Amino acid sequence: TRTLDLAVIAGDGIGPEVVAEGLKVLDAVLTGSDVTVATTPYELGAKRWHATGETLTEEDLAAIAKHEAILLGAIGDPGVPSGVLERGLLLKLRFAFDHYVNLRPSVLYPGVPTPLANPGDVDFVVVREGTEGPYVGNGGAIRVGTPAEVANEVSVNTAYGVERVVRDAFARAQARPRKKLTLVHKHNVLVHAGHLWRRQVEAVAAEFPDVTVDYCHVDAATIYLVNDPARFDVIVTDNLFGDILTDLAAAITGGIGLAASGNINPTGAFPSMFEPVHGSAPDIAGQQKADPTATVLSVALMLEHLGLTEQASRIQRAVEEDIASRVGNPAVRTTSEIGDALAARVAG
Amino acid sequence: TRTLDLAVIAGDGIGPEVVAEGLKVLDAVLTGSDVTVATTPYELGAKRWHATGETLTEEDLAAIAKHEAILLGAIGDPGVPSGVLERGLLLKLRFAFDHYVNLRPSVLYPGVPTPLANPGDVDFVVVREGTEGPYVGNGGAIRVGTPAEVANEVSVNTAYGVERVVRDAFARAQARPRKKLTLVHKHNVLVHAGHLWRRQVEAVAAEFPDVTVDYCHVDAATIYLVNDPARFDVIVTDNLFGDILTDLAAAITGGIGLAASGNINPTGAFPSMFEPVHGSAPDIAGQQKADPTATVLSVALMLEHLGLTEQASRIQRAVEEDIASRVGNPAVRTTSEIGDALAARVAG
Ligand SMILES: CC(C)[C@H](C(=O)O)[C@@H](O)C(=O)O
Ligand SMILES: CC(C)[C@H](C(=O)O)[C@@H](O)C(=O)O
Repeated sequence: TRTLDLAVIAGDGIGPEVVAEGLKVLDAVLTGSDVTVATTPYELGAKRWHATGETLTEEDLAAIAKHEAILLGAIGDPGVPSGVLERGLLLKLRFAFDHYVNLRPSVLYPGVPTPLANPGDVDFVVVREGTEGPYVGNGGAIRVGTPAEVANEVSVNTAYGVERVVRDAFARAQARPRKKLTLVHKHNVLVHAGHLWRRQVEAVAAEFPDVTVDYCHVDAATIYLVNDPARFDVIVTDNLFGDILTDLAAAITGGIGLAASGNINPTGAFPSMFEPVHGSAPDIAGQQKADPTATVLSVALMLEHLGLTEQASRIQRAVEEDIASRVGNPAVRTTSEIGDALAARVAG
Repeated sequence: TRTLDLAVIAGDGIGPEVVAEGLKVLDAVLTGSDVTVATTPYELGAKRWHATGETLTEEDLAAIAKHEAILLGAIGDPGVPSGVLERGLLLKLRFAFDHYVNLRPSVLYPGVPTPLANPGDVDFVVVREGTEGPYVGNGGAIRVGTPAEVANEVSVNTAYGVERVVRDAFARAQARPRKKLTLVHKHNVLVHAGHLWRRQVEAVAAEFPDVTVDYCHVDAATIYLVNDPARFDVIVTDNLFGDILTDLAAAITGGIGLAASGNINPTGAFPSMFEPVHGSAPDIAGQQKADPTATVLSVALMLEHLGLTEQASRIQRAVEEDIASRVGNPAVRTTSEIGDALAARVAG
């Protein structure tokens, strides 16, 4: 028997509600197998910050590092100044655990409402770099609050960091039927970073001769995402462009209620972290109104990452069936009713 | 009688074709008035670069600076390395002439095909900062081409630069019926630049008490642009976010064939420049396949900027009528046929 040793950061707002359903479905899919789950909750987020001023201590990090994987709900509430928890907790986890592959699949499941009139067959994955770019916190300001203020933000990009995520993206592209990789950047303006990315893609492409390589500027990519999203298979891009494109991708494939993500350290040196793309939605917190599907799909990504692919596909199928059952069915379900339905489907 | 003294940079690809139609419509709308047009063509772009290696000389700049306004078609061809003409010509013009307001209206005209199933009533304008941010060219790389390469891009933001564009955006919001301004940034990650923008908006808001102020992160903004674009009235944002959002905005309002822009220096110290948002589209160049409407609408923005508002609205109405006439009409028109139709409509 194998025990999955998980750190659970339920977080704020709807976080605890959706994480409860994610764990419910995880239990259900493992029932009857020789895999069990051990969860350790970590009290991190707005509540802790309000109480202690702490975001994530070295002790927290060391403790979390011992687990096999992390499941995270959502972080943040309006009472915390912007940036404090994002940089002090969420991004700190991604950086400390070297989550250089931020994996965000976008699939338009049959029956899901989309804002697009003719979406076509949408099934792509964004491999967003997770440890570099404008997210490194390498900025600063002088003369703050005066008319002479200057505020800089530095995007840091390294051959080391770009090459490894590009190689991961190529491998994912090669494993998919269409075997197509699109680099998204803005190398006509951000020439230094952009050409580094371009050269790394060209170099790694030689190792994957069966993968078709494409490029588009980030501005043009947003056009394609609404006019012809089916053209994409694997997108590899930097941290900020990936942030923007994956929210747009979520919107066209049924909303962030369905968008899952994995913050992956492919080397296994640190635990990978799985979280829905959505935020803590304080306006609906505690009301059982949140759709836990994105968290459940993040659990599936986690299982896949941990090598439990059969269980991962069972969750994915359950979600597809559940979504199909929503078509023409106006009944509003609570967060836990959706979790129950998914748990029943994976168990069966 | 007044003579509009224009510098015309037709540029590459479809540039000359669409500019010809823009000038045709300009002539037509001024016929019978006491305003005439004098145009001076400037040979800039890929052809010149291939021939001489020059992008934009100090002499070019000095000559162009003497005109009242600039009409630009499109720049670029695949034979020029990425970034050379963008930074050496297009951005150089925007920076040299301090075009700090990059104005990009997005209107969904009745009858225009949009990828959105239920777009609603879309009519907003993006005020994109044009002289700062990650566009300043303040980056660099070390150990290029080695595994130890580091490539940085610096986004530079100043109180001086942000305040003036924010004030311009507030004034535009105040002049519109809904009087609403949305700041788009990413201040939870880009804290230094983001908080500078936030503070400038808060400070300038005091001068415009009747304008409603809103904020959203750039990633969330892309969601709103496809789920509820009608919520936006005036968006003010930085150079890079504005680049991304305006391509998406163009896509949802009928494509970049219709998207106009003005690179405006509101002080009048230098000529403002008007250009379609689209590129040079070398694949269809010289074939009379390009839609000149974006250029014609850019001419309308130019007339508005030059105080000829009656003529500007006549062009806008002509475009609306022309677009309405396309509905259910499968006839494909050439670039100059569309220009002729618009010229006939503005002439009355
Ligand atoms: C909350 C924020 C820091 C985060 C990001 O920008 O990465 C979020 O938008 C995401 O996409 O996971
Ligand atoms: C060509 C490029 C430099 C330019 C930009 O990024 O500003 C274009 O995309 C635009 O939006 O006008």
